[in-house]
Amino acid sequence: MERVKTGVEGLDRMLGGGFLSQTANLVEGAPGTGKTTLGMQFIYNGIANYGEPGLILTFEEFPQQYYRDAASFGWDFKKLEQENKLRVIMTSPEVTKTDLENVGGRIERLSQQIGAKRILIDSLSHFERLTDSPVELRSIAYSFINALKREGLTSLLTRESTALLGESTSPNDDVTFVADSYILLRYVEIESTIHKALLVLKLRGSNHAKDIRQFAITNQGLQVKHKFEGQEGIMSGSPRRMADAFRRAFPSPGSR
Amino acid sequence: MERVKTGVEGLDRMLGGGFLSQTANLVEGAPGTGKTTLGMQFIYNGIANYGEPGLILTFEEFPQQYYRDAASFGWDFKKLEQENKLRVIMTSPEVTKTDLENVGGRIERLSQQIGAKRILIDSLSHFERLTDSPVELRSIAYSFINALKREGLTSLLTRESTALLGESTSPNDDVTFVADSYILLRYVEIESTIHKALLVLKLRGSNHAKDIRQFAITNQGLQVKHKFEGQEGIMSGSPRRMADAFRRAFPSPGSR
Amino acid sequence: MERVKTGVEGLDRMLGGGFLSQTANLVEGAPGTGKTTLGMQFIYNGIANYGEPGLILTFEEFPQQYYRDAASFGWDFKKLEQENKLRVIMTSPEVTKTDLENVGGRIERLSQQIGAKRILIDSLSHFERLTDSPVELRSIAYSFINALKREGLTSLLTRESTALLGESTSPNDDVTFVADSYILLRYVEIESTIHKALLVLKLRGSNHAKDIRQFAITNQGLQVKHKFEGQEGIMSGSPRRMADAFRRAFPSPGSR
Amino acid sequence: MERVKTGVEGLDRMLGGGFLSQTANLVEGAPGTGKTTLGMQFIYNGIANYGEPGLILTFEEFPQQYYRDAASFGWDFKKLEQENKLRVIMTSPEVTKTDLENVGGRIERLSQQIGAKRILIDSLSHFERLTDSPVELRSIAYSFINALKREGLTSLLTRESTALLGESTSPNDDVTFVADSYILLRYVEIESTIHKALLVLKLRGSNHAKDIRQFAITNQGLQVKHKFEGQEGIMSGSPRRMADAFRRAFPSPGSR
Amino acid sequence: MERVKTGVEGLDRMLGGGFLSQTANLVEGAPGTGKTTLGMQFIYNGIANYGEPGLILTFEEFPQQYYRDAASFGWDFKKLEQENKLRVIMTSPEVTKTDLENVGGRIERLSQQIGAKRILIDSLSHFERLTDSPVELRSIAYSFINALKREGLTSLLTRESTALLGESTSPNDDVTFVADSYILLRYVEIESTIHKALLVLKLRGSNHAKDIRQFAITNQGLQVKHKFEGQEGIMSGSPRRMADAFRRAFPSPGSR
Amino acid sequence: MERVKTGVEGLDRMLGGGFLSQTANLVEGAPGTGKTTLGMQFIYNGIANYGEPGLILTFEEFPQQYYRDAASFGWDFKKLEQENKLRVIMTSPEVTKTDLENVGGRIERLSQQIGAKRILIDSLSHFERLTDSPVELRSIAYSFINALKREGLTSLLTRESTALLGESTSPNDDVTFVADSYILLRYVEIESTIHKALLVLKLRGSNHAKDIRQFAITNQGLQVKHKFEGQEGIMSGSPRRMADAFRRAFPSPGSR
Repeated sequence: MERVKTGVEGLDRMLGGGFLSQTANLVEGAPGTGKTTLGMQFIYNGIANYGEPGLILTFEEFPQQYYRDAASFGWDFKKLEQENKLRVIMTSPEVTKTDLENVGGRIERLSQQIGAKRILIDSLSHFERLTDSPVELRSIAYSFINALKREGLTSLLTRESTALLGESTSPNDDVTFVADSYILLRYVEIESTIHKALLVLKLRGSNHAKDIRQFAITNQGLQVKHKFEGQEGIMSGSPRRMADAFRRAFPSPGSR
Repeated sequence: MERVKTGVEGLDRMLGGGFLSQTANLVEGAPGTGKTTLGMQFIYNGIANYGEPGLILTFEEFPQQYYRDAASFGWDFKKLEQENKLRVIMTSPEVTKTDLENVGGRIERLSQQIGAKRILIDSLSHFERLTDSPVELRSIAYSFINALKREGLTSLLTRESTALLGESTSPNDDVTFVADSYILLRYVEIESTIHKALLVLKLRGSNHAKDIRQFAITNQGLQVKHKFEGQEGIMSGSPRRMADAFRRAFPSPGSR
Repeated sequence: MERVKTGVEGLDRMLGGGFLSQTANLVEGAPGTGKTTLGMQFIYNGIANYGEPGLILTFEEFPQQYYRDAASFGWDFKKLEQENKLRVIMTSPEVTKTDLENVGGRIERLSQQIGAKRILIDSLSHFERLTDSPVELRSIAYSFINALKREGLTSLLTRESTALLGESTSPNDDVTFVADSYILLRYVEIESTIHKALLVLKLRGSNHAKDIRQFAITNQGLQVKHKFEGQEGIMSGSPRRMADAFRRAFPSPGSR
Repeated sequence: MERVKTGVEGLDRMLGGGFLSQTANLVEGAPGTGKTTLGMQFIYNGIANYGEPGLILTFEEFPQQYYRDAASFGWDFKKLEQENKLRVIMTSPEVTKTDLENVGGRIERLSQQIGAKRILIDSLSHFERLTDSPVELRSIAYSFINALKREGLTSLLTRESTALLGESTSPNDDVTFVADSYILLRYVEIESTIHKALLVLKLRGSNHAKDIRQFAITNQGLQVKHKFEGQEGIMSGSPRRMADAFRRAFPSPGSR
Repeated sequence: MERVKTGVEGLDRMLGGGFLSQTANLVEGAPGTGKTTLGMQFIYNGIANYGEPGLILTFEEFPQQYYRDAASFGWDFKKLEQENKLRVIMTSPEVTKTDLENVGGRIERLSQQIGAKRILIDSLSHFERLTDSPVELRSIAYSFINALKREGLTSLLTRESTALLGESTSPNDDVTFVADSYILLRYVEIESTIHKALLVLKLRGSNHAKDIRQFAITNQGLQVKHKFEGQEGIMSGSPRRMADAFRRAFPSPGSR
Repeated sequence: MERVKTGVEGLDRMLGGGFLSQTANLVEGAPGTGKTTLGMQFIYNGIANYGEPGLILTFEEFPQQYYRDAASFGWDFKKLEQENKLRVIMTSPEVTKTDLENVGGRIERLSQQIGAKRILIDSLSHFERLTDSPVELRSIAYSFINALKREGLTSLLTRESTALLGESTSPNDDVTFVADSYILLRYVEIESTIHKALLVLKLRGSNHAKDIRQFAITNQGLQVKHKFEGQEGIMSGSPRRMADAFRRAFPSPGSR
């Protein structure tokens, strides 16, 4: 199956090569975990390394903020826009919804202008303002995702998690069921330090790594590192170390 | 009692041979656990191995998505449809409800056309949009299940669990009481890796395995593996290993 | 005091001989724990072993389902109905409520026809649909229970618990205060296997066993087994084993 | 200060002699813990041992139920009523509220007829049906308590706790602030057996025992036993034993 | 900075000498922890030891209750009222609010009559009945506190915590942000006995002790005792002892 | 990138030099943790050490309270106001919102009068009173933050956390996503003493320290100290020490 590389080496390996082409990929995390960085990196690498122009749809931050944030990683988004390889579009969920319901809308036009193959939606959480009904919200999200696929785009959609540590409660409109892949970014407290964990929980139509990896935001963007070791309950954000030390201290009889 | 084999060997063994004929079987899990895969496998194996045509009722995904997903396991759903052994029907809970209330509805017609014996409902959770009343929802689900039984169908119904790890809160419309069997798929974090657990919690009218098994989604579909070992609290999604190491380290006096 | 034996030997022993005559006995459990099985067994044993005809009141399942379920334990409910020792009545909470408010209602009539001494209400949870007010619900339940007593019936009332493991939250209409006895059926995860636990929490007017027992659904019905050993927190559904191993490993100084 | 003995020896000792005269004493517990038994014992002992006639106010159960329950402890309530030392009154919160607001109401009249010194209110929880407002509820409870004091009565008020194990959530109308004493009855799971714990949390105007005691319902009523030993977290209902065993196993260096 | 001694020696030491003059000091605790006792002691000691007359504002209990409660500690409040050194005023939050909004209200008048320097508000929780809006409630509390300061009064305000053990949930109107100091009284279960813990969490404009201290209500009032030792999680109300025993049992290598 | 030093040496080091210029920096903490102190220190140091005048916007406390609080740290805010280097402005969220929507509003005017470079908003939580809609609230906060940036101001915004220990629940309007940095102040109970913890969770566009540090409020303001050692679960507020002692007691085989 055709793979769309994120260009984040460790992540592509976990994904068995990258996202699948023309799929919707959800990246969820608390504030500061690096969702947007990963999204920009996905777009930047697409343009710089794989010849795939990209769109960024933002519902809150101004394009200037993306230019500044990208610049701190050495990614010159302004220049890419001038070269017609990138479009950073600030819009609203309302406009986006209408736009995609019609043929020849703005996103379709911009996408075709630059021959976009990738799109970053930052963030899908803003769709929540469109309706109070979880059922309707899920239906909107699903239509939106399908519209992106029809445009031939592989999308990375960020989603905000309000819980700092551990799992958010009651996302009962759960768009995770309709996304093709689901990546979790989490804070984890170990030895009085906050680490970051990345987990690929779902990847429709392909095998993927199941281990929980450390990652860091370096000055070249998100970097996936080794697996956590000797911790229980990482996904809770506050793991226990003890069992591991215990296991080493009390090896099973056979191994003595 | 007549058994309807899922064709997933380990699961059939846990079920004492398979589902009971013309029963409603609930499979619950978080996104990415493999509910739909198990459902497709149940339908595919019915056709390919046991000569039992099948229906797939979907309330969200397009049939194309099922073709693609099935193809990745080597199951050619398009061909089976052409051979009149399978129907993948995209519909809505509203239509389905009305349809089953009347004699000679669409599902009945399609079922009879191909002589269907099995049906996958993907997912029952979409019925929640029909009403805000838990009492009415349960009543609808019960009628729906009975209508399927009247058609002579053995059904596998998927249900979405929004909690990633551990138990979902407050399913107070609980259709689990009216289902004939209840299978849970869960994520479990062990040694910094996400595993998947399968448990048969209920099987009306038959004995069944009570142990919690590991399973994987391989390129041949869902595969049930060995029992978890040396873990406490698996169903919480974040088990503790310690007791086991402890037990080995400190055997009881009599065994020294 | 006169005892009404359930015929489940281990349970009767825990109850100090059986239920008290003309009392209301609540059996609560999650789906698949065996509430209905215990209820049918109570009715069957009453007829077969103690010469006490019985009624079954169901608000959801059809009588046929009870026939089938009973048959799997070797209890021929159809025959018992033909012999006028059993009546399986499918009705609604609404009808039942009205029925019992009037003299000479259907339940009274059926009860007198067969000389019923026992009744299974499956389940009391369906009364929740009668009102949104916890106060009114409790009042209805209390009136209902008293009406059954006036008919001279000893009742077993099932109640659904929606939490799979551990305690359900907020049953603030709590009928447990008005029931004469209160039996809990629970799932318990131990060593990667789901066990079932039975506890008699309350038995008005009599002493009773306080220990938490394992039980199983065998092909002869519910069978009470030995007490759990070396586990803490059984009622949470996810007990810890450690303390016990610890205690054996580190006996108190005096016992060395 | 004058003491009103409950006649439950261990409890009177914990209370420093008994309740204080003309105070309102709250006894809270889950179903089956023995609230009503303690209340009846308080009334019975008052009549039989201390020459203090008593009233029982019930909002749900019929007097006959109290006669039966009392009889199982050897307390002949019928006879005491005939001797004009006891009145068991079934009424409603609504009537009671009005009654106490007026001079010469029914409770006042009955109290004076028999020269009552004690009263059991079973249960205060039924007042919750009078209003949805926590503020108003507390105000009603406070007025009620004061009316009882004005009649010269020492009251024992039962309150229902819906949590089986551990603490009930959100009693934000908290009448515990206006009661003069507050006694908790709890279920505690230890070594696979359910024990009962009693704790005096508050006793206005007097010192009291602070330890958590085991108690049992014997055929002579509630009997307070020894303190729990070697358990942490008893009030949670699911204590841990380990620390204690640990302490014995690993005494501090100085004590070796 | 000028200090207003509570006269509770251990507490004054924790506060670095006492409350700061003309500040609002919040004391929070569950029923029976001793909030009102501490408040009365603050008022009594002000009059008896520091020549500072005081007011007590109560929204629920009658003055007689304060006389009785104070008497049990040997504090003769009636006499102090006759000597014009104390006023115990029963009022309502509504009246109090209006009163303080106007110049020359009742509290101002009474305060000036006796030259009051201290005031006990028992309890601030009753203000919750004035409004359902957390924002408005906080605004009212803030105005109230400032009005007391304008009168030159140092105030001790009690607040009710409904959780018996551990922290109350969701006090989202949080007056703790506007109080100048914040003292917590908590129940703590240790070795099957309920202890009481006191903690000064906040003292605006001054250093204060940060340790969690045991305290008792003796016949001379609240008495602060030593720090808890060898317990983790005291503020949860159900601490763990183990770590401490462990630390003693397994000293770090360097200390062997 | 240009850095705006807070002047709190340890914090500036954690931030890689200070805040980034013209960014919005969120400081969250429970009552008494020192949010306002840190804010005042940020303003004071700006004026005294870096020649950057500052504004303080307060929505609840009077300027006098800031003068007093600042004075206790030796910061003479009155004098700084007279020297036109500081303005402490008491206003309302409503006025502030309108003010910033118009050109030449009061904040703009005051900012220009003194050439302000820094601003303290104490606290952002008061904006919650402007609307019940989380979506609108976030939009207002975002506009407000951007207006401050347009004025050329680097802002420190305090936010109240109502949970005393551990994480607050459900801040689903989460302004943390739009802030440029996010600093958490927390209470932590260790060895029966309350410590304070500081964590930089997010710093947009820059690397930052990830460890959880102790801090204290000294008479010179907030002082960042060493990292916590040997504790698990610090961010929960109630850490466990055991693992560490364990690790020392049972070193891994290789290190023996």
